[in-house]
Amino acid sequence: MKVFFDTRQNDHAPAREMHNGAWMPYSEQPSRAAAILNQLADFCPARDHGIDPILAVHDRAYVDFLKVAHADWLAAGREGDAIGYTFPVVARRPLRLDRIDARLGAYSYDAGTPIAAGTWDAAYWSAQTALSALDALAAGERHAFALCRPPGHHAGRDYMGGYCYLNNAAIAAEAARSQGFSRVAILDVDYHHGNGTQDIFAEDADTFFCSIHADPSTDYPFYWGHADEDGIGAGRGATLNLPLPRGTGGENYLAVLDSAMAAIAARTPDLLVLSFGADTHASDPICAFDLDRDDFRAMARRIAAPGIPVLIVMEGGYAVDDLGHNVSAFLSGFTA
Amino acid sequence: MKVFFDTRQNDHAPAREMHNGAWMPYSEQPSRAAAILNQLADFCPARDHGIDPILAVHDRAYVDFLKVAHADWLAAGREGDAIGYTFPVVARRPLRLDRIDARLGAYSYDAGTPIAAGTWDAAYWSAQTALSALDALAAGERHAFALCRPPGHHAGRDYMGGYCYLNNAAIAAEAARSQGFSRVAILDVDYHHGNGTQDIFAEDADTFFCSIHADPSTDYPFYWGHADEDGIGAGRGATLNLPLPRGTGGENYLAVLDSAMAAIAARTPDLLVLSFGADTHASDPICAFDLDRDDFRAMARRIAAPGIPVLIVMEGGYAVDDLGHNVSAFLSGFTA
Repeated sequence: MKVFFDTRQNDHAPAREMHNGAWMPYSEQPSRAAAILNQLADFCPARDHGIDPILAVHDRAYVDFLKVAHADWLAAGREGDAIGYTFPVVARRPLRLDRIDARLGAYSYDAGTPIAAGTWDAAYWSAQTALSALDALAAGERHAFALCRPPGHHAGRDYMGGYCYLNNAAIAAEAARSQGFSRVAILDVDYHHGNGTQDIFAEDADTFFCSIHADPSTDYPFYWGHADEDGIGAGRGATLNLPLPRGTGGENYLAVLDSAMAAIAARTPDLLVLSFGADTHASDPICAFDLDRDDFRAMARRIAAPGIPVLIVMEGGYAVDDLGHNVSAFLSGFTA
Repeated sequence: MKVFFDTRQNDHAPAREMHNGAWMPYSEQPSRAAAILNQLADFCPARDHGIDPILAVHDRAYVDFLKVAHADWLAAGREGDAIGYTFPVVARRPLRLDRIDARLGAYSYDAGTPIAAGTWDAAYWSAQTALSALDALAAGERHAFALCRPPGHHAGRDYMGGYCYLNNAAIAAEAARSQGFSRVAILDVDYHHGNGTQDIFAEDADTFFCSIHADPSTDYPFYWGHADEDGIGAGRGATLNLPLPRGTGGENYLAVLDSAMAAIAARTPDLLVLSFGADTHASDPICAFDLDRDDFRAMARRIAAPGIPVLIVMEGGYAVDDLGHNVSAFLSGFTA
């Protein structure tokens, strides 16, 4: 039998792979081909058939990506092999999955949201904290702050991701209906798009969801929060995405916030659930907006201005040394 | 303004996250809440509202999973925090994505398939190797072996995954049509389901795809290869999945192979593309079937028996020390 092989196949030699929660040496290594050739008499080299038979099967955009991906990885300042960590999961089907790795993937969309021993208890009490703050509003308070941690806005009905497990804002918004609120709006001002909250209410015409966030073409969660996402089915028009470029400062941010508040006021909600991330502050180590504490106070004043009761739910913010001052500056804008 | 918090939220403290291709310390840490509380006068503890408001938003199966995931992770013999690496991506929409991390995720479904400097060239020549072996069949050879590496059967039209970038078997099957073959069947006998090949031909009634593989409830790629997947639209019935339990030995395997070959023969193909993985051998370090070299020879004899020309495309197999002997044993069955 004729055997075909081309020595240029050996150019592919990644160092490691992510497997069962850890890096391990890459199993699919060039020595595999060498081991097989050692037992075969000889081989015929490949003839170049060009790119057309490849493009008969694969999308050109995908092939173009494969060609440049490693160079783009190095250009981004990275070392070693290029590897993804967040994936465009859009639907799941119920499956019997026994292995823990299979279930972890089935209930998430990224490889960056670990479950530690205490995660469930913490997520449960984070949700209870949001519900307790809602009680205060139902009892007549104009504003209440739920210091939720872990945060929630990336978690969907059946998935975790982006540090989030239970969607505290969505749980409070849903519970608000049974506490006498009839029209709930959600405003998400975290640096990152609140894809989980959007997904939960995508088909719900009665719960308006508006998010101001970094452009997902450059920032997590990448596959959601683009300006054309405006709801699904009966919910079309009840989702409003306002992505902003990296580097956005206070003046531009506040102008966009004014548009968001106008869209919210037009819905005449009797409760506003605010997903608040302090990661829009200039000092945040993993984000790239350029807001300061004066901007935070100005944001809060604009959000408080229409007089809608506001349930403030804590989301992101990672500049730990500044975080307390940043959050208290924001909260002070509600009483100023 | 009333502030709500519960100290049990601090139980969630993962050590690290996967970010930009590497582990980094977990940014969403308990010190965030402490930093905020330091700047606020006092807080009200959460009142327990129970699980119902959580289940009003989240699926019960997801909530049940969150409760047990870390215990199941430890029970599987793992250390540290539980983390997924393979995700049930089923559809993508075209998006402008600038960041390399966004594009890596958009074109893959796992965090275990790195792109190294030489990946494109190697994948290109791996595909050319399959096409060159096809030429030999078109010229009259009865069998030819394409020693492809990297392998291909997990790669779809627009995604990589599972060590695969270009789908060598699919590229050869598609090219065969322009070489005078009219009815192509694909048989995948790698240990893992050939989800990429299945996806490429899912709606194609003319290209029969049959796969014998480890049950995806326990084995990669988890979300595809379940017995109920039989094709889509016009392709319904042209996909046949035969998942087998871990530990399957020669006798049971060969009986299932007989059914597969009967289904293939009923389609009277004039070319059989065989995705061959040697990872069904008992010695494979990352797989769990129990076949030996005699079984490999018996497999080959059964596949050769109907007299259909066979293009053998190399897929997996990671027992490097045994690999040459295992592959040559398999190939010898075609001439015995």
